[in-house]
Amino acid sequence: MSKLLIVGTVAFDAIETPFGKTDKILGGAATYIGLSASNYNVKSGIVSVVGGDFPEEYLTMLQNKGVSTEGVEVVKDGKTFFWSGKYHNDMNTRDTLATELNVLEHFNPVVPQDIKNTEIVMLGNLHPLVQNAVLEQLTEKPKLVVLDTMNFWMDIALSELKEVIKKVDVITINDEEARQLSGEYSLLVAAKKIQAMGPRYVVIKKGEHGAFLFHKEQAFFAPALPLEEVFDPTGAGDTFAGGFTGYLAKTEDVSFENMKNAVVHGSNLASFCVEKFGTERMQSLTESEINDRLSHFRELTQYEMNITK
Amino acid sequence: MSKLLIVGTVAFDAIETPFGKTDKILGGAATYIGLSASNYNVKSGIVSVVGGDFPEEYLTMLQNKGVSTEGVEVVKDGKTFFWSGKYHNDMNTRDTLATELNVLEHFNPVVPQDIKNTEIVMLGNLHPLVQNAVLEQLTEKPKLVVLDTMNFWMDIALSELKEVIKKVDVITINDEEARQLSGEYSLLVAAKKIQAMGPRYVVIKKGEHGAFLFHKEQAFFAPALPLEEVFDPTGAGDTFAGGFTGYLAKTEDVSFENMKNAVVHGSNLASFCVEKFGTERMQSLTESEINDRLSHFRELTQYEMNITK
Repeated sequence: MSKLLIVGTVAFDAIETPFGKTDKILGGAATYIGLSASNYNVKSGIVSVVGGDFPEEYLTMLQNKGVSTEGVEVVKDGKTFFWSGKYHNDMNTRDTLATELNVLEHFNPVVPQDIKNTEIVMLGNLHPLVQNAVLEQLTEKPKLVVLDTMNFWMDIALSELKEVIKKVDVITINDEEARQLSGEYSLLVAAKKIQAMGPRYVVIKKGEHGAFLFHKEQAFFAPALPLEEVFDPTGAGDTFAGGFTGYLAKTEDVSFENMKNAVVHGSNLASFCVEKFGTERMQSLTESEINDRLSHFRELTQYEMNITK
Repeated sequence: MSKLLIVGTVAFDAIETPFGKTDKILGGAATYIGLSASNYNVKSGIVSVVGGDFPEEYLTMLQNKGVSTEGVEVVKDGKTFFWSGKYHNDMNTRDTLATELNVLEHFNPVVPQDIKNTEIVMLGNLHPLVQNAVLEQLTEKPKLVVLDTMNFWMDIALSELKEVIKKVDVITINDEEARQLSGEYSLLVAAKKIQAMGPRYVVIKKGEHGAFLFHKEQAFFAPALPLEEVFDPTGAGDTFAGGFTGYLAKTEDVSFENMKNAVVHGSNLASFCVEKFGTERMQSLTESEINDRLSHFRELTQYEMNITK
């Protein structure tokens, strides 16, 4: 079993969807990644920052799931990062209502000693300079570095982003971001251009339309599980990333073939995340629920066919 | 091997895409369906109508592919159905520039004697009254009736459409049409509501995002093959339908498990259709090209994973 280092926000979210709205609830990329990866019983730790207003119980909850929060700095007189958004009726688009950086503004990440030799690194969505600062503290070259990012950093910090993209093995972005980063409409061509920037593997997430994994001339695709209702899409991409890296850390196999399985695991977990508001569904998830849905996933995608038939 | 009866338009299209524009070229739902199904060497025949302006060589081309055109009425003093459209830059949306019904306006379909006992019927996109008139001429109950339609008929002939939908085994529509027909946003819920209208199987086509097959509590999904370039999407849905029904006619197995394979075959053929303008790519397609891409399709979608791993 490999160690998994998770970098990203630990935050408050306030979410509005056609189904209702929340007050400030637990959110943040690293929170979702950690909760998702915790289903694989790997030794994982989060590097992040929160303010003095952040409830101790949230950190305890993560610790109880086996996610170390030793690397989560608490700035006593600071306020926790806050994001608020409202989803439109189709759940595919949203408006950001508020973004308060607070303690994130001057975040200087410190990787705890005992995970500086981590095998797998999941760089969650954050300023690329922070992602880079984490990589520079590692004492051994990890087996696999996975980076998630978003269009916001392409808009305001493209050169810093490109510097960190050079250093990673896998990048996970959504389809629009892949098009923006590459300047190509075809995702196949976009993935090739992005591979030329550094990452040997490119995961392109298409939300309800599934996810691609590209590597050289190879491609793999996993759909999103069709659901009766998507309640709240917040955190689905981070949950995917947590399942993807958690599975790879557990199986200690970063081959393309096993990465296909990791994409299936990530998609599978993301299908749970969206069933309730915030992290609620992920906090209550059980192993048998996960395995049942993996079987469902297999029925959805696998077929038996003799090509010469 | 089962007989396959194809109903639909045989037409002229004029197409404009970001890659160029065509004069009046061969088009029509039944043309694409027939060309696609011809890859399975089944005994197929088209029921349609054209005008005196329709080149004999187009009919000969279809006959040379093994597609009977005995059921294609030629109205000597009439003009062939003409459609003209312009695709936007994303290739997912298009404007209709012209629709001239011509001989289609008073079309009274006549099914040739030797395919009145067909086992598989593919009702291509046409007025539901025409689709129904074909079903009423059959002398034996077919093993499988598949219906394709579009939002246009939902807008102007919904009750006639619902009458024919009651009689079919499979319906193929796109995601927006499934939502319109069912009044449900979730495709899973939409498929259940549509099954309650008659068809035991519901295929929901999502264009570049792949296709679902729903049946009772079961679901199957096949992605669209990622391509470097989509040159002209015209006819992709009909090509899917031709591959779907052609494969079922050839294998004489209409079980859900084999229908999964039929969805893969339909998606596979559709990926060729869009590579050139109009029917050009489908006219030149070879068996080894089809099988190569089926292998590619398998690599894209199949994985080996022990769920308890």
